[in-house]
Amino acid sequence: MTLIHDGFLLENRTAEELYKKFAEHMPIFDYHCHLKADDFLNNTNYSNITKVWLAGDHYKWRLLRLAGVEEKYITGDGDDYEKFLLWADVVSRAVGNPIYHWTHLELKRYFGIEEFLNRRTAPDIWETCNRLLQEEAYSNCSLLQRANVKGICTIDDPTDDLSAHRELENTGKCGFRVLPTFRPDQVFQIGTENYIRWMERLEMVSGLKIKGLEDLENALEIRCRYFIRHGCLSADQSLETPDFTCFNRDLAEAALLKAKSGCSINDRELSAYRTEIMMMLAKIYHGHGLVMQLHFGAVRNINETVFGKLGPDSGFDTMGESIPIRMIAPLFNKLSSSNQLPKTILFPSNGLDHEKLNAFSNCFPEEKSMGKVQIGAPWWFLDHKDGIETYLKSMSRQGMLSVFVGMLTDSRSILSMARHEYFRRILCNLLGTWIERGDVCNDEDILGEIIRNLCYDNAVNYFHFNDK
Amino acid sequence: MTLIHDGFLLENRTAEELYKKFAEHMPIFDYHCHLKADDFLNNTNYSNITKVWLAGDHYKWRLLRLAGVEEKYITGDGDDYEKFLLWADVVSRAVGNPIYHWTHLELKRYFGIEEFLNRRTAPDIWETCNRLLQEEAYSNCSLLQRANVKGICTIDDPTDDLSAHRELENTGKCGFRVLPTFRPDQVFQIGTENYIRWMERLEMVSGLKIKGLEDLENALEIRCRYFIRHGCLSADQSLETPDFTCFNRDLAEAALLKAKSGCSINDRELSAYRTEIMMMLAKIYHGHGLVMQLHFGAVRNINETVFGKLGPDSGFDTMGESIPIRMIAPLFNKLSSSNQLPKTILFPSNGLDHEKLNAFSNCFPEEKSMGKVQIGAPWWFLDHKDGIETYLKSMSRQGMLSVFVGMLTDSRSILSMARHEYFRRILCNLLGTWIERGDVCNDEDILGEIIRNLCYDNAVNYFHFNDK
Amino acid sequence: MTLIHDGFLLENRTAEELYKKFAEHMPIFDYHCHLKADDFLNNTNYSNITKVWLAGDHYKWRLLRLAGVEEKYITGDGDDYEKFLLWADVVSRAVGNPIYHWTHLELKRYFGIEEFLNRRTAPDIWETCNRLLQEEAYSNCSLLQRANVKGICTIDDPTDDLSAHRELENTGKCGFRVLPTFRPDQVFQIGTENYIRWMERLEMVSGLKIKGLEDLENALEIRCRYFIRHGCLSADQSLETPDFTCFNRDLAEAALLKAKSGCSINDRELSAYRTEIMMMLAKIYHGHGLVMQLHFGAVRNINETVFGKLGPDSGFDTMGESIPIRMIAPLFNKLSSSNQLPKTILFPSNGLDHEKLNAFSNCFPEEKSMGKVQIGAPWWFLDHKDGIETYLKSMSRQGMLSVFVGMLTDSRSILSMARHEYFRRILCNLLGTWIERGDVCNDEDILGEIIRNLCYDNAVNYFHFNDK
Repeated sequence: MTLIHDGFLLENRTAEELYKKFAEHMPIFDYHCHLKADDFLNNTNYSNITKVWLAGDHYKWRLLRLAGVEEKYITGDGDDYEKFLLWADVVSRAVGNPIYHWTHLELKRYFGIEEFLNRRTAPDIWETCNRLLQEEAYSNCSLLQRANVKGICTIDDPTDDLSAHRELENTGKCGFRVLPTFRPDQVFQIGTENYIRWMERLEMVSGLKIKGLEDLENALEIRCRYFIRHGCLSADQSLETPDFTCFNRDLAEAALLKAKSGCSINDRELSAYRTEIMMMLAKIYHGHGLVMQLHFGAVRNINETVFGKLGPDSGFDTMGESIPIRMIAPLFNKLSSSNQLPKTILFPSNGLDHEKLNAFSNCFPEEKSMGKVQIGAPWWFLDHKDGIETYLKSMSRQGMLSVFVGMLTDSRSILSMARHEYFRRILCNLLGTWIERGDVCNDEDILGEIIRNLCYDNAVNYFHFNDK
Repeated sequence: MTLIHDGFLLENRTAEELYKKFAEHMPIFDYHCHLKADDFLNNTNYSNITKVWLAGDHYKWRLLRLAGVEEKYITGDGDDYEKFLLWADVVSRAVGNPIYHWTHLELKRYFGIEEFLNRRTAPDIWETCNRLLQEEAYSNCSLLQRANVKGICTIDDPTDDLSAHRELENTGKCGFRVLPTFRPDQVFQIGTENYIRWMERLEMVSGLKIKGLEDLENALEIRCRYFIRHGCLSADQSLETPDFTCFNRDLAEAALLKAKSGCSINDRELSAYRTEIMMMLAKIYHGHGLVMQLHFGAVRNINETVFGKLGPDSGFDTMGESIPIRMIAPLFNKLSSSNQLPKTILFPSNGLDHEKLNAFSNCFPEEKSMGKVQIGAPWWFLDHKDGIETYLKSMSRQGMLSVFVGMLTDSRSILSMARHEYFRRILCNLLGTWIERGDVCNDEDILGEIIRNLCYDNAVNYFHFNDK
Repeated sequence: MTLIHDGFLLENRTAEELYKKFAEHMPIFDYHCHLKADDFLNNTNYSNITKVWLAGDHYKWRLLRLAGVEEKYITGDGDDYEKFLLWADVVSRAVGNPIYHWTHLELKRYFGIEEFLNRRTAPDIWETCNRLLQEEAYSNCSLLQRANVKGICTIDDPTDDLSAHRELENTGKCGFRVLPTFRPDQVFQIGTENYIRWMERLEMVSGLKIKGLEDLENALEIRCRYFIRHGCLSADQSLETPDFTCFNRDLAEAALLKAKSGCSINDRELSAYRTEIMMMLAKIYHGHGLVMQLHFGAVRNINETVFGKLGPDSGFDTMGESIPIRMIAPLFNKLSSSNQLPKTILFPSNGLDHEKLNAFSNCFPEEKSMGKVQIGAPWWFLDHKDGIETYLKSMSRQGMLSVFVGMLTDSRSILSMARHEYFRRILCNLLGTWIERGDVCNDEDILGEIIRNLCYDNAVNYFHFNDK
């Protein structure tokens, strides 16, 4: 029994041809992932497949918990082999879940394993993987190189010194570019203890005393410049509720001063502060030609008991609500009116927003810029076959598929680059199906260009990525 | 012309094989329906097919009204034969509606009729059905036995004496188990006239004078114990707007006292009361090992004129809004933190919530429990082929299909058990299609187990149902 | 390479047969479009294809902008031929967008062109189209006649004198009926400068001094009668946020008087005014047997900079939020209770509402009326193959497909009548697919009737359209 073969996910001959001809050999620029630059400094090998697959990947943890597996065998001190056997059993029953596909795609592409993973085949697969993982070709740098990765963008706090990025850039030793992303989430966490400590760090690394919004703006811009000198092409932001409707700089200024001195702020001040900061950041990004990524709506850490034990990013987050247009339209309108709207990618957490936000995005075009504002690739809870197909169809019917900047992994797992193949197969299958149904004209020039654009070229152009 | 044959809804050979091998012969445990225990005491026969189909089934009434049929021939005193002819005409044109399928499935399974029902075939079908309905094999108990039903759960008010359930259990005469479900909807109707009368009944049957929340809790627990002694496995709750965000016991206490003495309460008191009651009930259910079913979001009786004439459950209800995560997350978080969250099934009225509530549910797992919190089977406005497929896909991609406790009818109609077959065919068709497309490995051990689980075994285990 | 052939969009033989037998030759009654009666007075010819396609059609403008084309070549003074070449290039890459299909359908049906339009074929197609456009058979009246159009309904302000409609009716010279639609959007624009000017016009044309709500009601009814004398069958309303919950005639009266005298009004007054006006209009429509169309939720002109330059209807609008049931249910309930609810078609801007609003609509039936309240055909952002299929399925599973009043173009483009063919092919394909899958019984009497109803007959009956 084998799942992965040449025609995997490609339901007709045209789809297969498109994939082979235009998609299969394209390189990867993973412009948004959660890998750490540090990890590549030593070109590490993993001691076993459990370390690769189950350490850090909360997508898999959720499946295990849902199946009733004890935490000991998930994030706890259970034996790695026993963890693997439990995982094999669970994933074998997870039909229709993308992890079921990713797992087998990763086994095939990295380890040459075609067997279906389940409790019976698990012992042999454990042996094979672990043996291979000791080889030089299975170091973390090698794994990405073999996946034809030309560059990745990590997620970094504005106060980070980016020393790992610098070393990797200077030495070029990992074989692909590792670029930082400016992610000032902390500046929005006003009112929390972390906020005060973070502002102190920002003052330190920027060399500025922050006495008001203007100082904060300067400090952020200084760090933005620093990031750009280290290869940064893009900024990112995660916000549960994007309420950008209270334009009041005085109130925002008051909120900043109160919060810095440890006083509490009210809801209106919070809203004014967030709106002002978002405007400020967007203008900085526009000024420096950075792409602005906005991740909206995920509701995090809703189970406090486990949050206390395991911390964030442990699998206790959920997709949230639809984002109301009136919460974001004034921000875009103002930035656009003053000609300071950066290229923007909107990532809603709930796929129900795709249709609406596609219609919204297309209201902010720019001459000579393709798809300047667009909604982002299906991520997190949306990153599965149905989600990708729905996304591609929504982009197409509300606008132009061909402007999409393409897939990202958003992953913490080193083997996840296989998800680019997953995406490409689904893309080619959709186009092939349209052609065979007679919905699309089989013009290879046009279709080939669209596919190459969505695999790699659009991302390179949109982010100004240089693969050296 | 015939609709129902062996391959009905099964679009490929694998789907047919899966259905025959693993689904067709599984028994039924209908853990949520609106049949009445009383009705089975006398093992009744129906005088004609109009009585079986059109008395009490507001799904069908809506279709008739939409087609412009006069109320006289729906709920009125029109002649039963004329009613049947009109129904035959309407349903023959209701292509794409699940009732079109259910109707023909019921004609075939119970009456052996393969003809397509329309105005031309209606007279003959009327004769055949009515003749058969006089036979012993067509009594209401016999109809459920022939459908391979092992047990059903009815919906019951906490003040009910459950005498019918008791007699059916003691005598075993209906051939399957008829278990009560604890449904304290009335305790949430604070501020209405019904509320005061209901509280008086509760005081009477519990033997407690309710002077505050503690008394109310004791009274509810006494009744819960009474229900459990009569076979109850589960509690249920229907709430239009689940706003569980105001945790304030004092306010809730005040609301109770005011309402009991006929004073009006304000919005905050209402919210506090409902939140407190929901917490209280959940803890009782957890303590006694009852499954908690929550039906959210349906908007009832929106047409007051007909409500005045026909009362509730007459077909004038609608699907409502999406349920915001922030309205329910604090409740689940608090219950989980104190380790008092019962097994819970969330039934949103609007299918748009499935994806989000799946992601939400998976944040509250429990060791050694499979799918402890999960969203419920497609019900009411969601119970159709597309709805079932969408639900199954959502369960799969957001978690594990294999933990789903399976289908229910939620029906008032005695012939509705055929909907379990409907569900099973759609399930097997989905899995068969995935296999034939190469999306799922054809491992019969795993797939057979999943199918049996979703047909019967999961429900038996989750509810601790004993089929004797 | 050709896209349009007999089997276009028809994926199986049954679908093809249904289309040929029942749909292809049906006439068109386009009960909602944005064509202007004036334009037909002179039976105009267009100087070139750019004038036909790109002047006034903001759907196409959005695509061009999204691709980065300069505004000069969209709404600006760029050369018509250059505009056409750019359009040809963009549309050739717009796979999956309905305009990709409509473009080729229009080329084939009106110009006999089968070539795929792209930058290479554009010059020849430009020549061919422009040559034909000079012929008598290509005047705007002729184009609609050739599309088998029996009547169209334009959108008109209550203060319009309808002189063009009158002349067209009296002379019958354009070969099809051009009927006005009563669209009192301005009466809802209370608080704006336009409002005061519009009220003055209303006073003038009605001959009434408006000193209060009663006068306003009389003035609107006078104009309604005037419209009906000119063939009006239907009224229409566009509202971003349908908040019909504040029933307070005094407050509404106060709002009217304040606004007329230039004073500002508050939110509650606004809400009361809108609720009162909506009630008032609905009663007028019911009294005169007009169909009430309600277009909800679109968010317009969100990009102020371009709004300043290009004005409304330029492609800077977006789909908006889901409409909460509680915002509209009281209005429908009150009208229904006093037996004054007109036939109503609800057009939500966001397709996510279809399922919910279908369930809602079916709560307001009327004896001897088929589908009295129903949701409208997919319009604007929903008018594409997937949108139409989803709509048809939603109508079917929540109620009865056969009561649907059928397609509209909602278009400003003279060639858009081809969208009726587009709709009919998708309809027949869905039914054909259901039949071949065994989901629907192949009863040609019933299916033929459904198809003819949805192509033309239902609209004729519902609107009481007389095609002479």
